[in-house]
Amino acid sequence: MKENNLLIPGPAPVPDAVARAMSSEMFNHRGPRFKKIIEESTAALKEVFQTRGRLYILTSSGTGAMEAAIVNFLSPGERVLSLVNGSFGDRFATIAGVYGAAVERLETPWGQPLDYEALETKLREDVEHTLRAITVVHNESSTGMLNDLERISRVCGDHPALLIVDTVSSMGAVDLPVDRWGIDVCVTGSQKALLLPPGLSFIGVSEKAWLAAAEAKMPRYYFDLRKAQEYLEKGQTPFTPALSLCVALREGLQLYFAEGRQNCYARHRRMAAAVRAAAGALGLEPLVKDLQQASPTVTALRAPASIKVDQLREEMRRRFGVEIAGGQGELEGQIFRFGHLGAVTESALLAGIEALELSLQTLGYPVERGRAVAAGKEAIRTGLRPAAGGRK
Amino acid sequence: MKENNLLIPGPAPVPDAVARAMSSEMFNHRGPRFKKIIEESTAALKEVFQTRGRLYILTSSGTGAMEAAIVNFLSPGERVLSLVNGSFGDRFATIAGVYGAAVERLETPWGQPLDYEALETKLREDVEHTLRAITVVHNESSTGMLNDLERISRVCGDHPALLIVDTVSSMGAVDLPVDRWGIDVCVTGSQKALLLPPGLSFIGVSEKAWLAAAEAKMPRYYFDLRKAQEYLEKGQTPFTPALSLCVALREGLQLYFAEGRQNCYARHRRMAAAVRAAAGALGLEPLVKDLQQASPTVTALRAPASIKVDQLREEMRRRFGVEIAGGQGELEGQIFRFGHLGAVTESALLAGIEALELSLQTLGYPVERGRAVAAGKEAIRTGLRPAAGGRK
Repeated sequence: MKENNLLIPGPAPVPDAVARAMSSEMFNHRGPRFKKIIEESTAALKEVFQTRGRLYILTSSGTGAMEAAIVNFLSPGERVLSLVNGSFGDRFATIAGVYGAAVERLETPWGQPLDYEALETKLREDVEHTLRAITVVHNESSTGMLNDLERISRVCGDHPALLIVDTVSSMGAVDLPVDRWGIDVCVTGSQKALLLPPGLSFIGVSEKAWLAAAEAKMPRYYFDLRKAQEYLEKGQTPFTPALSLCVALREGLQLYFAEGRQNCYARHRRMAAAVRAAAGALGLEPLVKDLQQASPTVTALRAPASIKVDQLREEMRRRFGVEIAGGQGELEGQIFRFGHLGAVTESALLAGIEALELSLQTLGYPVERGRAVAAGKEAIRTGLRPAAGGRK
Repeated sequence: MKENNLLIPGPAPVPDAVARAMSSEMFNHRGPRFKKIIEESTAALKEVFQTRGRLYILTSSGTGAMEAAIVNFLSPGERVLSLVNGSFGDRFATIAGVYGAAVERLETPWGQPLDYEALETKLREDVEHTLRAITVVHNESSTGMLNDLERISRVCGDHPALLIVDTVSSMGAVDLPVDRWGIDVCVTGSQKALLLPPGLSFIGVSEKAWLAAAEAKMPRYYFDLRKAQEYLEKGQTPFTPALSLCVALREGLQLYFAEGRQNCYARHRRMAAAVRAAAGALGLEPLVKDLQQASPTVTALRAPASIKVDQLREEMRRRFGVEIAGGQGELEGQIFRFGHLGAVTESALLAGIEALELSLQTLGYPVERGRAVAAGKEAIRTGLRPAAGGRK
């Protein structure tokens, strides 16, 4: 059997030390050992989030935290503007609608930039400030688009609507100063850049959002952050947490800070550049053309007309043990996606690129052997140079 | 540092093989490996539940599954009768209320039996069948009371209300024939009798409940079982599952069936008998006096007037590495609780009893050394005899 070289947009592979920590014996989740873990991890996660606001650890997938980000801060009937250019943007709008918000979708085609100008117009026209929240996905892993959160933050300006952001596949891998960008509610999951298996999610909350939570009337129990706050003050969670993941979390965060935030961001940028360079060498087109808008963690490539995505993925899995993802929703069959986040190493990614090259060739696509890997390597080498003042 | 001898009502200790399985490498949760795991585990869990109905695996604590058991089957304004004689019965009523049900509580004091006759009257008087659901906790781990689910099932008879049951701390440890007892919705967690760390929950659903789900109007997204069904048909979950726990689940279920259901039930009964026998030898009173109503998985003992529960727990933890639980809510400071479920061995429990004896003595409570442990051992020995035809 081939090695499992996991290059999907999550779950990402986990470092050995994290995997070992997952084997922890059980202990009392209402005792001093857990208190130390939750307090230290909450503090460390706030550093990852670059926030001095509140932060809670939930036992759920990232989608559970998305639900928490809606139901804790809004009341049925309130106006929500959802920016949608992919599957997860759509999910945020759907959740808000399920819980009774009056949702307006500002949609652009999947893989296209958000309509920042239309957002600006909407906010300017909302003179009575009836808009209560804006939802947006930072990194659309369904398309490999990194939405311009800094610009959205600027556009929102002084408008009182809460800025609610899904950073599931970007937090930790991309510079994302939550407080500086005025993000009110920020959710992420454990299984992407934060080096953990799936099962925990994290939610950051600004003081403005916390005040809104006291008034919010959407029903909530399991995801009720007022309870999370009450128990955090005792060093606990309201309900039994996924203890093994909490133990591993501390391990993962240590490794994360040992690499260093800036190094981690740079590694993700290099990996994205490598996939795009390889795609260029293979004559493949990235779904997101503009490098500035390209995700550092997930790259979607358009499948050549002659290639069936399922066959390509099967070939890569069967012959090389390389697991990549297909397209979701309307992009199914049209794109395939490389995830390159968390503990994915540059050499694992290059092995994935090699598997792509060989598999395309097997399936009859014309390939000049070795060019894609060489291009990927060169992108990584170039990326290793200091950004400013580096010699050409 | 002392060995961690975990004797709380959950999380229970986990077997080594399960702990090792938790270290699994990550893999694609939308691929063939996960499909096999979810299909096999769902089938095995149905055997544990003794059901041919539907069953879903959720990434959450047991409380998440309790929420799923309410929001998937009811609409705001519908009448729910909640049987309450402990903290978890209260939680069920609270969740139903939060989501807008018209909840009536049929309460008896914590540690006292439910009012089965009042339930019968309520159901008989409901000639128009406006009552849509009855919620009940099988095993109240807050008090160590095993509520008489078979009797409740009989009392419900042909009334169309859904019988919604929390079996978080009984499923697997106690004979609980879900289909035979006409349980419509049955929830449990991974971290109790099923030998896993916390982080997964399981929910069984009868066809009658499934029909109700199609009409139910309470809002739901993360816990929406229609989505869980849609994805289960593809061998997936709607959202990224806690993969490590899913791998360990298969391991845990194998160990569970290797011991055998009947042996497992008997072991839990013996452990409960051992704690009660030891309590008798120490002159301590169990909160639940009637053996027929006593939980096989959790035993609550009243603290002697001279003993502070926190001090006792601290002494047992510090000197012997034994972790027991205190009381919750109105019973805080009045009782302490031994959890004896899942992978707790009889010898670990006897070590816990010895720690109790020695710690009580240290704290000035009069103890005749060795009597409690001897009584516990004798209860285990007696319990090992065949129930019928055993020599006295």
